[in-house]
This record gives sequence, C-alpha cells and structure tokens, in this order.
Amino acid sequence: MYKVGLLLGGRVRSWESIRMASNKVVRPDPLANKVALVTASTDGIGLAIARRLAQDGAHVVVSSRKQQNVDRAVAALQGEGLSVTGTVCHVGKAEDRDRLVTMAVKLHGGINILVSNAAVNPFFGNLMDVTEEVWDKILDINVKATALMTKAVVPEMEKQGGGSVVIVASIAAYTPFPGLGPYNVSKTALLGLTKNLATELAGRNIRVNCLAPGIIKTNFSQVLWMDEAREESIKEALRIRRLGKPEECAGIVSFLCSEDASYITGETVIVGGGAPSRL
Amino acid sequence: MYKVGLLLGGRVRSWESIRMASNKVVRPDPLANKVALVTASTDGIGLAIARRLAQDGAHVVVSSRKQQNVDRAVAALQGEGLSVTGTVCHVGKAEDRDRLVTMAVKLHGGINILVSNAAVNPFFGNLMDVTEEVWDKILDINVKATALMTKAVVPEMEKQGGGSVVIVASIAAYTPFPGLGPYNVSKTALLGLTKNLATELAGRNIRVNCLAPGIIKTNFSQVLWMDEAREESIKEALRIRRLGKPEECAGIVSFLCSEDASYITGETVIVGGGAPSRL
Amino acid sequence: MYKVGLLLGGRVRSWESIRMASNKVVRPDPLANKVALVTASTDGIGLAIARRLAQDGAHVVVSSRKQQNVDRAVAALQGEGLSVTGTVCHVGKAEDRDRLVTMAVKLHGGINILVSNAAVNPFFGNLMDVTEEVWDKILDINVKATALMTKAVVPEMEKQGGGSVVIVASIAAYTPFPGLGPYNVSKTALLGLTKNLATELAGRNIRVNCLAPGIIKTNFSQVLWMDEAREESIKEALRIRRLGKPEECAGIVSFLCSEDASYITGETVIVGGGAPSRL
Amino acid sequence: MYKVGLLLGGRVRSWESIRMASNKVVRPDPLANKVALVTASTDGIGLAIARRLAQDGAHVVVSSRKQQNVDRAVAALQGEGLSVTGTVCHVGKAEDRDRLVTMAVKLHGGINILVSNAAVNPFFGNLMDVTEEVWDKILDINVKATALMTKAVVPEMEKQGGGSVVIVASIAAYTPFPGLGPYNVSKTALLGLTKNLATELAGRNIRVNCLAPGIIKTNFSQVLWMDEAREESIKEALRIRRLGKPEECAGIVSFLCSEDASYITGETVIVGGGAPSRL
Repeated sequence: MYKVGLLLGGRVRSWESIRMASNKVVRPDPLANKVALVTASTDGIGLAIARRLAQDGAHVVVSSRKQQNVDRAVAALQGEGLSVTGTVCHVGKAEDRDRLVTMAVKLHGGINILVSNAAVNPFFGNLMDVTEEVWDKILDINVKATALMTKAVVPEMEKQGGGSVVIVASIAAYTPFPGLGPYNVSKTALLGLTKNLATELAGRNIRVNCLAPGIIKTNFSQVLWMDEAREESIKEALRIRRLGKPEECAGIVSFLCSEDASYITGETVIVGGGAPSRL
Repeated sequence: MYKVGLLLGGRVRSWESIRMASNKVVRPDPLANKVALVTASTDGIGLAIARRLAQDGAHVVVSSRKQQNVDRAVAALQGEGLSVTGTVCHVGKAEDRDRLVTMAVKLHGGINILVSNAAVNPFFGNLMDVTEEVWDKILDINVKATALMTKAVVPEMEKQGGGSVVIVASIAAYTPFPGLGPYNVSKTALLGLTKNLATELAGRNIRVNCLAPGIIKTNFSQVLWMDEAREESIKEALRIRRLGKPEECAGIVSFLCSEDASYITGETVIVGGGAPSRL
Repeated sequence: MYKVGLLLGGRVRSWESIRMASNKVVRPDPLANKVALVTASTDGIGLAIARRLAQDGAHVVVSSRKQQNVDRAVAALQGEGLSVTGTVCHVGKAEDRDRLVTMAVKLHGGINILVSNAAVNPFFGNLMDVTEEVWDKILDINVKATALMTKAVVPEMEKQGGGSVVIVASIAAYTPFPGLGPYNVSKTALLGLTKNLATELAGRNIRVNCLAPGIIKTNFSQVLWMDEAREESIKEALRIRRLGKPEECAGIVSFLCSEDASYITGETVIVGGGAPSRL
Repeated sequence: MYKVGLLLGGRVRSWESIRMASNKVVRPDPLANKVALVTASTDGIGLAIARRLAQDGAHVVVSSRKQQNVDRAVAALQGEGLSVTGTVCHVGKAEDRDRLVTMAVKLHGGINILVSNAAVNPFFGNLMDVTEEVWDKILDINVKATALMTKAVVPEMEKQGGGSVVIVASIAAYTPFPGLGPYNVSKTALLGLTKNLATELAGRNIRVNCLAPGIIKTNFSQVLWMDEAREESIKEALRIRRLGKPEECAGIVSFLCSEDASYITGETVIVGGGAPSRL
C-alpha cells in the first residue's frame, strides 16, 4: 500500500482508482455530495437520469406536476437505497420553480446540478393545424421555462463556486419527427439555448450541455411506437435497429455533470442509436 | 406588350434565354406575375428584399407596424417604377395577418411568395437578466408569428398550385451574438421551423427555405456596430473583413423564390461574409 | 409600357433591367464577360452547370477525361449559341490542370470562375471491403485534385481582381449513401475544404462556396435509382417525392458565382428536394 | 487501507466517496477485461486516453512511431500499476497495423476497443502553398490509415461479439485553425468517416464515435500557443478562457467505449471549452 500511495501521491484525481490490499478497486462516486435537481423525473428518461445521478452519489430532488407521481418515484428510488427526495413542480410556474430551488437548498445546503427535462406532451398534429394556444404552451414550457428554471438555480450554483446544467432536447431538433412540428421546433430552440447559456455562464464556472435522445421506449413516446407496424416503419426511417431504453440516456447526463466533463460546455450529445443526425 | 407577353408567356423558364434578331438575349423576369408578401419590409433587409422581388417582376406587398413607415417605403419603391403596395401589419396580431392576406388577394388575385422578416428589436441583455415578458414577446413575434403568418398564406398558395416561403433568421442562430440570448435562441428555432414547414408543405408544392444574414449594416443592427471600436472588434471576432449590405441579402431570397430553386427546400443559406458558421 | 419604362429609368444597376427602344426589358447577363472553367462537365450535373453559366453570359471551358465526350458537349452547347470551348482534362494530373488553365487564359484572357465537379465514379462497396488503392484514388481525385485545381486557378483570378469557386460535393457528405463509404467521406472533406479555402482566399477577393446535390437523375447516379423498386426505396428513405434534375443544380451555381452572392462565402447549399440534411 | 486513507485523506474531494464496512459501494471498472488499442498514445492526448482506459480496467496496448517513446510510455503507465504494453506502429504501414492487431490478440486474446489518434503533425502552411506531397501524407495518415486501422481490428471485434471505436478528430473539423488547411480538411473527413463506419458496423455490434478536442495544451499543439501573445489571441478568437488539458479529453473516450454509451453511435463529441463549434 505504501508504494501505491507513493506512486499515486499528489496525482490522485477523480478518475483515478484507489487500489486496496485485496487489489479491489474502489471508485469514488463521481457525483458524491452533489445536489441535483431533475425536472419531469418521475417517469421515463427523467426518472432514469434521477436514478443514475443518485447511484453516482448525488442527492437528487425529483419533481413533476402530480404529487402521486412524485411520491411513487421517491418511494421507488429510496427503496433502492438512494438519496432522493421530491416535490411537485410545474416548471411553467414561477412559484413552483422557486419552491423547488428553496427546498433543495433547505434540505442539502445548495445546488450543483440541474437537469431540465420538462416538456409538454408532444402529440399535437401538424404545423398547419395547431392553434396559437398550442404554440404558446409548447414554447412556454419547453423553451421559456427551461431558461427560467436555469435562471432560478444559477445564483445557488454560484454560491457553490460553479455547477452543471443539462438540458434534454431531442434528435427531433435536428431531424423532425413527422407530425410533431411545434414540439420539434421547441427542441431546436433548446440547442441554441444550450449554446447561449454556456457562453453566458462560463464566467461563473457553470457548464451547460444538452442531451438529444433518439426514440426511447417510454410512455411519453408511445404514440411513435405503439403499434408494431409503426415501430417498424420508424426504425426503418431512422435506420436504427432498435429503440433506445431510458437508462441509455442516463449515463451521459451523469458524465456531463461530472468533473470528467470539465472542458465540455455548450455541446449537445445525441443518443440516437445511429439514426441520421448531423456531422 | 402583347408580343412580349407571348414570348414570355407560360412556357419560358427563368433560365432560358430568348434570342432576338439582334442576337441580344432577353431574360424574362424570374418572378414575373408572382405576388409576394414581405413582412417588416419598410427598412433594412426587409426593404431590400421587397425591392429586389419587385425588380425581379413580382407584385410586392410591403408591411410593418407603422403606417408612416409603410407609406414612405411604398412611395419610394413606386417611385422606382416597381409594382408595390403596402399595409400596416403587426405580425403578432391575427387580424393584421388576415388583413395582409386579404389585401394581397384582393389586389392581385392570390399569393405566391411569403418572406417572413418580422422580428422584435434584438437588444435585451443577458439570459440571466431577461424577464418572462421579454421571452414571451420574442418567442411570440419571432417564432410563433412566423409560423402563424405562414399558416395564413398557405391556403392562398395552394389555390395557386404552390408557392415559396423564405424565413429570415440570423447567423446568430448558429453562433450566438453576445448579450442577445433570447433573440439568438428564437433564431435557432427558425432553423427548425424551416425544416418542419418544408417537410409538411412539400406535398402542397410549397417550398420553405431560410436566410441567415450575418451582421448587415442596418438601423436594426446598429447597436452591434455603432462605435468604430465595436465594429472593429465584431469584424475581428467574426473574422469578416466588412459588414454586409442589405442588398447583399436580397438576391438569394429572390433566387430561392424562383423556379431555379425548384429542388431546394428546407435549407438555410447563410449570408455572412465568411464568418464562422457551420459545415 | 411607356410609363413603366420611365418609371424604371435611372436606377439601373448591374443586375437591373435595361430598357431598349422597343421598350423591351433586357436584364444584363449576370455573368457577362466572365470566364468559367467547369471540370467534369460533359455530362450530367457538370454539363447542366456549364450550359447555365454560358446562358448567363460566361465564356465556358468544359472538360472531362475523354476527347469524344468533350467534343460532343462542345458541339451541343455551341449549337445552342453559347460561348463554349473545351479540352480534355484529367484533374488528377498536374499537366492537365495546367493545360486547362493555360487554354482558358489564352482564349479569354483570364479566369473568373471555377466549378470543380470532377469526382471518381462512386460505386465501390463498403468501407470494410475497399482496398487501399480505392481510397487513394477517391481521395486523390475528389479531395486533393479539387484543392490543387483551385490552387492552379487562383493566380489567374487574382490578376482579375478576384473570382469565385464552387465545389460540387453531395448531400452524402451529411447523410451517407449506403454502401458508398469512401465516396461519402471524400464529400464530407469537401465541406471542410470549402470553409478553409474561403477563409484563406477572402483576402484575395475570391469567394468559395459549395453545392451539395441530393440524388439527381444522371448516368453518374444511376446505380442508385436504376431499378424502380430501388428508386422507390431511396425516395422513401430520403423522404423526397422525386429525384432531382441536373438543371435544378445549375441555377444556384450561377447565382453563387454572380455579384448577387458578394457576401456569401464558405457556405454549402444543399439541393436535395427536402431530404433530411442539417440544420 | 488506513495509510491510503491517510495519504488521500486531506485531499479527498466532494466527489470522492469511499464507503466502508457495511455500507461499502464497489463500482466495477467500466472497462474491466476489455482490450484496447490506442494509436499515437505515447504523448499528449493519446497518452492521457491510454492511461484513462487502463485506469478504467482495460488492458491497453499503446503505440507510436518510435520505440523509445513507446518504451517510455509503457514504463510510466506500468509504474502506475496499469495493465499496459506497447509496440511501435506507423499506422500508414499495413504490416505495422497488422502487427499491432496480432500482438494484442496474442497477449490478451482479442480486441474490444480501438482509439484511433494517429495524425500527421499539423503545421504545414496554407492551402495555396502546400504541395501534392503534403496532401498525400496528411490524407494517407489522417484519413485512409484511420479507415484501414479500423478495418484491421473489426474482424477481431466481431469475434468478441462487438466492440467500440473512437476516432480522434479536432474542433478544427468544424472551425478551421488558420494556416492549417490540409490538417483541418482531413479532420472534417473524419466526421464523415465516423458516420459511415457507424452505419456500416452497426450490424456487427460495433459502435463508432468521434472525439473533437479543442486546443489542448500538448507538444502537438504548441505551435498554436507557444508564445504568450499568441495564446491570448487564440483564447480570444475561440472565446475560451483557458486551453484544455489532455486528461480532459480522456474521460469522454472511456465513456464512449463503455456500456453506458450503448445507444450512442456515429456521434462526435466536442471537448472545446465552449469554443464556437456547431449546433
């Protein structure tokens, strides 16, 4: 051990292994003691992200619009031995955003991570059919509330000396899903929001990145894959062999929030199973 | 006139030369007999586009929010011998959008071209400072109204057997202008809106493309270049040698609306003087 | 008519109409007196571009690897009354590139425009199958020769005070055509070459842009659409309703070479019929 | 353990959580038992990647063109207790590529991971100056050899039921570094190569992704940052606050090679410190 200690001395960093007598490696939790807010995290991709952040050591505050969904998610994750609490939060409401921030600070003393996953259910028909009200709702929740939620957590991140934001967009930001125009457009806007926030917050030591999932098998996306024929045609159109799983979106989010991503900001990572995306 | 009418009539395509006895080539106007709406077209880039469409043969309806600006632009363009009329139109108001469409139809029997240039004055400070109201206004006018203006003209284009839409975004959609977060984000959204509209309207023979100007010397952009030092620093940051002129944005719009662009839809063309943009 | 003539008078600019005694509108040729080299221009897209540049006023030098193809193309275009000459040029050979340049200068006194369209026939199988020789050939002709051809014309453009280069890539640069790996990769490289040349040549008043055609119905692409079933499946995969025609690629090239594109450099325009491409 | 605890004690950071006794979490090494080849890995980014893959559990074979560099890197990494061997490999030579593959298979029974980092030293002047030989060398090593190295390992990956390839490109693929034209172009080509390999190898359960580092402080890039004034001007032009460190490129590569990235293929991740890149 002494030798190992000597060899490692001074150079130990987050990603380095610490070898024990048994030669068993103990990896530190990459997000140990971090406090993470995840919106829309009681189901699907958001839940998988919340779970992963907690597994990686973070104290996670889950949230969504319905108390019963929050209760169920918190119970499930606590039952797995994870450090998770939750509260109802409709991200479109200023008081809800503020309450979420306040609760996290009260419980854990600060905020280090925000994962902004909240989005309006996407199935609204064509651009030529949607009403002004649909546009309002989608832009309000998907774009404006993402910006305002970030704005609400930034002062708390600054108190911690920095932080990390991950915005959940969609591969539809690049390659539109047919029949989901306003949803697709709002997701494209998030690519820009990511770049802009990253630039603006770099000086405060806050990194901002974006996850763009492909078609992931969740309740949220079920309209896209519900009947078998439709699933086949989507797979063919997207040139993917299978739909993704929520867990397959979670690792990259944890990574982007960790010290390992210290030089990555303003970027979008696509988790799309090889579907055509962008260069 | 009659003979010219015959020569030009119907079968002649924009790129076909007609040789006369003198061996002089007579190019037909590429937009002859087309009816074009251009929003926010009483100044700057919009005005340059309106002028060019008219010079290229279109009947153009200009518009902006103030009657006196409309009057001035119409007088100027008519004074140049161009077929131009105008009306006040605040694109955020449904009744204004409808009135614009109705007027064009009444005057000219239909609509073939829409250039959507209307945008909120961009100088609103940082993302961390802007209020909910600023977001509302920018997303309303720059994104939602663009979609709704298009929706309003599509039925008239269908009656003509097709048409062409050009949306004016900005290079800031790709490379954010510092300090203009919400504006930049709204312009990124327009890249997505272009792709989505193109897909949705292809079946109706309506093409939808996008112009992304770099920094063009107009009243609109003067905050960016007003003092000389600032202009120099922008030119250095963008690696451009000079700012663009409004006229330099106009030719591409006319081109995209012409038969020459019959296989181009869903695309964005950057007029940025070589500023870093995208692959 | 008289009034129109009067009204239009006085504002004549390079691209504006010039009225003659007969009151006929004469648009000046946008490329009048320009000298244009077009490689691989005796068939397909290259031929359509050569024809269009000539129709728009340029003196065009066509070329390709076989004398009989050059002869046929020159005869056809001259038969249309166009100012066209030609010579054999294998762009991979320095002496051929030099001969092409020398000939253009001798005939017309200088060079203003280069359209680099030469590419190896693309049908080479999968990346896992191709040999080193195939890679060599494709990178040599599609990438290196494009750079060297440009290098060969630049001194002549400088003598004219500037010029315009258009490189023909492919939508496959963004969205790979299945089974055409090395071809696709070489086309992606051309997007970068365009950006790099544009930056480097801006100071010499030479603009460099790129055309990325989708699937255009030519002999070159016939492997992609030869049998009807295959054509259908391509149309479905690319979400296009029809394949493009060579002429539909020609207008944009002429436009990019004209004064109307004076502030456009380093950009790629996709002519893809709405196929998924990029934001 | 005690001593280790002591040694590490004072420096344990918030993200380190070593759980003891009952509450002990042991994270498995994400790359345990994987065999990884890393080319050009005896210095800079390649060395950092090799170290990280080994720290994350992989058996790593390092390589570069000079025996003494290989020896030094192997000694250093073995000295850190890592499972590392090495061999000379000039990736442009078929026999070297084959020898590397053979050695890895003989030592470790197969190959799971390839990180292709080899590239020609980038400092070759402008596109208008470089000779045909420079182009040949750069395209040979940076593009062709990357494809051929991948081709050489694929059969071994197939025997293992799949694998993961990471190609190291550069942010210069998107935003050219001034004066490095051919280098930049070759890196753009790698973005396409990544997409094409990903598509072609998906059916064999091999994922292919790409890392695009920004300006990382290494010997390789020192021409870019050598004198202080130049470093400042680069930082200003790229709008980054500091250059990156090789280690900051290593975590993402390990991540992309791990199971956590099971639904990520064909993608490029930029590690650029917030420099302008792409949407």
